[in-house]
Amino acid sequence: MSGLFITLEGGEGAGKSTQARLLADHLRGLGLDVDLTREPGGTPGAEALRDFLLFGGHDLSPRAEVMAHFAARADHVDRRIAPALAAGKVVICDRFADSTEAYQGHGLGNGDPALLDLIARLRALVPAMPDLTLVLQAPPAIAAARMAARANSRADRGHTDRGRTDRYEALDTAFHARVAAGFDTIARRDATRCRRIDASAAMDAVQDAIRAVVAPYLERVGHA
Amino acid sequence: MSGLFITLEGGEGAGKSTQARLLADHLRGLGLDVDLTREPGGTPGAEALRDFLLFGGHDLSPRAEVMAHFAARADHVDRRIAPALAAGKVVICDRFADSTEAYQGHGLGNGDPALLDLIARLRALVPAMPDLTLVLQAPPAIAAARMAARANSRADRGHTDRGRTDRYEALDTAFHARVAAGFDTIARRDATRCRRIDASAAMDAVQDAIRAVVAPYLERVGHA
Repeated sequence: MSGLFITLEGGEGAGKSTQARLLADHLRGLGLDVDLTREPGGTPGAEALRDFLLFGGHDLSPRAEVMAHFAARADHVDRRIAPALAAGKVVICDRFADSTEAYQGHGLGNGDPALLDLIARLRALVPAMPDLTLVLQAPPAIAAARMAARANSRADRGHTDRGRTDRYEALDTAFHARVAAGFDTIARRDATRCRRIDASAAMDAVQDAIRAVVAPYLERVGHA
Repeated sequence: MSGLFITLEGGEGAGKSTQARLLADHLRGLGLDVDLTREPGGTPGAEALRDFLLFGGHDLSPRAEVMAHFAARADHVDRRIAPALAAGKVVICDRFADSTEAYQGHGLGNGDPALLDLIARLRALVPAMPDLTLVLQAPPAIAAARMAARANSRADRGHTDRGRTDRYEALDTAFHARVAAGFDTIARRDATRCRRIDASAAMDAVQDAIRAVVAPYLERVGHA
């Protein structure tokens, strides 16, 4: 048994973290062994790098920042994701390599081809490919409203960043539009792995759509 | 004019930092524009990563640690080394990519081929090849005596780590032997770029040997 690796991707305010938690609860209810994790982070070393990258105020060069994200990812894969998959678990990860491509490559890097090439090469060096990637897409107005609500009440998040606003949340709407377009590009390019989910609906309706997409994959982890 | 990139490499107690400073002073005395720097570090972001890696107590997986070192290196190259070389300067760097290969690949990684392969691929992704690498080699007894002297008096170092003992200094003699053997392997493999320097002699004699090796390279930066 080789486990099942599901990632949730999307811009700020798409509802990823909430949907990841609801999906994990659902699959646990079906009797599956689920490891719910997130990026950047997921291991003590990678969480320390998350803190360095999102809240440290360090201004790394674009290449350096991309490599530091992959350093955190390598620890997460080596120490948590790969062992969990080897043990036959379902790994649900809130953000993964697509986020580096969308945020650093398209958002911060403005689609710089050299940076996107570096990201592609680093992906090949840390080979952990999700079986299924759910790309949550919400119109900018809805995403902005959710970000505002989150800023007011962070207690409902599955993971905590101690109430702090990270560096991406503080960026402008043009940045977030580039990130959203980046995710769309990735989803269309890797259409076999990625499924776009309309995240503009109510929470329960989005979760229903996600469960319908996930259902056929559960055979792989012994669930008929 | 494309500058001149000189790195000093070697295990603990080989006298690299002292010799790098003496070489910088010598070249400045010849009227050259010299940037003396070090790794890990050399820029604010990379120094922060140095602190994370050497003193943070974070236990990253071997692959993750290697990638984090290259993240720091990318910032250093992008923000300091490449601009200095483009401006025609002499860049003298106390440790560079060979140290990652010797310390992480041979020392901590025990020569693991997968890790050495990762390091080679990352080197290709951050392409800044020294024109000349001085590999300082001292017999273990001399290196150990210098490390002990340094632990007692850190005030003479060109850079300060605030008197702290880093994670490598604290490791055993078998580790340091693997690092030394790693540097020797690198120096023999890249024999055109690397020159081995017998660092067992007195400080001034070692510096004289270094200056003799460096002299023919100075034409490249307009010094006859």
